[in-house]
Amino acid sequence: MIDNNILNVLRESGDLYISGEELCKFSGVSRAAIWKRIEKLREEGYDIEASPHLGYRLIGIPDLLIPSEVKWKLRTRYLGREIISYRRVDSTNAIAYELAEHGLADGTVIFAEEQVKGKGRQGRAWQSPSGSGIYMSCVLKPHMTPNEIPKITLVAAVAAARAIRDFTGLDAKIKWPNDILINGKKVCGILTEMKAEQDRIDFIILGIGINVNTKAKDLPGGGSSLKEELHISGGAHNISRVGMARKMLETMEEYYNLLKNKGSSSIIDEWRELSAMLGSRVRISLHERTFDAQAHNIDPDGALVVRHDSGIFEKISSGDVVMVR
Amino acid sequence: MIDNNILNVLRESGDLYISGEELCKFSGVSRAAIWKRIEKLREEGYDIEASPHLGYRLIGIPDLLIPSEVKWKLRTRYLGREIISYRRVDSTNAIAYELAEHGLADGTVIFAEEQVKGKGRQGRAWQSPSGSGIYMSCVLKPHMTPNEIPKITLVAAVAAARAIRDFTGLDAKIKWPNDILINGKKVCGILTEMKAEQDRIDFIILGIGINVNTKAKDLPGGGSSLKEELHISGGAHNISRVGMARKMLETMEEYYNLLKNKGSSSIIDEWRELSAMLGSRVRISLHERTFDAQAHNIDPDGALVVRHDSGIFEKISSGDVVMVR
Repeated sequence: MIDNNILNVLRESGDLYISGEELCKFSGVSRAAIWKRIEKLREEGYDIEASPHLGYRLIGIPDLLIPSEVKWKLRTRYLGREIISYRRVDSTNAIAYELAEHGLADGTVIFAEEQVKGKGRQGRAWQSPSGSGIYMSCVLKPHMTPNEIPKITLVAAVAAARAIRDFTGLDAKIKWPNDILINGKKVCGILTEMKAEQDRIDFIILGIGINVNTKAKDLPGGGSSLKEELHISGGAHNISRVGMARKMLETMEEYYNLLKNKGSSSIIDEWRELSAMLGSRVRISLHERTFDAQAHNIDPDGALVVRHDSGIFEKISSGDVVMVR
Repeated sequence: MIDNNILNVLRESGDLYISGEELCKFSGVSRAAIWKRIEKLREEGYDIEASPHLGYRLIGIPDLLIPSEVKWKLRTRYLGREIISYRRVDSTNAIAYELAEHGLADGTVIFAEEQVKGKGRQGRAWQSPSGSGIYMSCVLKPHMTPNEIPKITLVAAVAAARAIRDFTGLDAKIKWPNDILINGKKVCGILTEMKAEQDRIDFIILGIGINVNTKAKDLPGGGSSLKEELHISGGAHNISRVGMARKMLETMEEYYNLLKNKGSSSIIDEWRELSAMLGSRVRISLHERTFDAQAHNIDPDGALVVRHDSGIFEKISSGDVVMVR
């Protein structure tokens, strides 16, 4: 385990050295223990300079989605107050689901550096190469009925688009129901799963995958990443995954609170503004049929309303949508 | 494992003896193996008479919810084609859910003779004393969206009321959303759980508990059983749990097919006919408020429509309902 006391004293000291003696005082452990804990921090990726006369100084922090990083100055009340981080998992949603069945606090977040079997919607795969994206799953326990779950996806989509815009300045847009596009290319996907009774949600696992520094060639199914769309060249200038993850958690909590306190209608307007498809011609693939129509609106339940060529409107709550010319 | 070949030959022979030699011929195993298998059947509760000169004769079958019994002459196509039976479990729904996550065929049914932590709706308990009730959970994988799950409860309630009526002649009625009452007392409960994505159900676990021969004193939370309501006195005349379970599976499959092929509207009329509460004054307890109203109707989505004293109608999709004078 990382000693957060020591880490935080080092952080607060900024460019200044802090002596071993002072570290002992702040953390209440012996000099020998300090040394061990500094070593442990180094193993986790923290770059700590040790000078015999001056003491210790933090000169580099890892861009890893670990609790000590993500929770540092995280401005949320419950989302991400508990964080569990893995190096590699099959799927953060699968592991979060399993853990939630045995009891996890509302707002717990699971991160992984790599997913071997990252999940997309409808049993599809989500490419999750090591260290380049954010692969996270949030445990949510709202007082809702199962038919309200599309509202969670709605909120997550608005929050993801907004967080990406705020953090990168990129023109992120929403493609119903669960994708975030930049310049028409997918950079983020949302997978909402739940365990529920007929009229009560036990828990929701909200999975969010963001391609942050991922190279286009590592996304064989197409898609892009924030870095690709920012046209940053070279490997040195990566986007901070920790910063992006924090922004995502903060924005998500904000919109989730809005949903719980004011209902989905307060978020629908923003969804419409951020939509990549409203007004466009789309091709809808349902379980039993495929047809073209105009994406007309989104309703407060999170369903897509399309307008057929005949003028008839239809509510779509499941299915795949692609934009056509 | 029970040798179903031998068991079925014995069954088909009825009151007639069948020689060891004939049993060898039918089952293709040796005399010594026959003996072992007969012993195994006896251990499972089958009463088999063995006469040195005449051979074997089946004189008693156990009323146990085991595959060899429930599947015997079961007239379903998929529901109960796979059966897993336990002596004792925490909860058949919990174990079915866990097994389904690792893959069970659509229509698989889990039975238990006893539940230690039988589950009711909203985290409540379901009394499940050993050997007296039917505690079963069906794995269903319909092509439905999560908001359609109340339809499954609707169908199960109609099927349960109908099956109990057909098998016992008792006047079983439905109390929305998930109870079956006889003479105003609960004899059967339904617990519908699911794992789902936003727009796709992975699987449903449909739990059905029926108090068959349960004594009222073993139901501390109130309620009754089929036997109590039939006023059968003495322990000798029990209602066949196997027969009731078979009837339940057959009726459930019939109505479930109807739902899949024709939609819920075809079942709503029957639900209304079987309702214990439509037209009655009811007290509704929701998450945030309690009020009295008149139970007016059920809508095709499975929600209860109540009429407030002000004349306004409201759709209730979650909550508890009790009938008041």
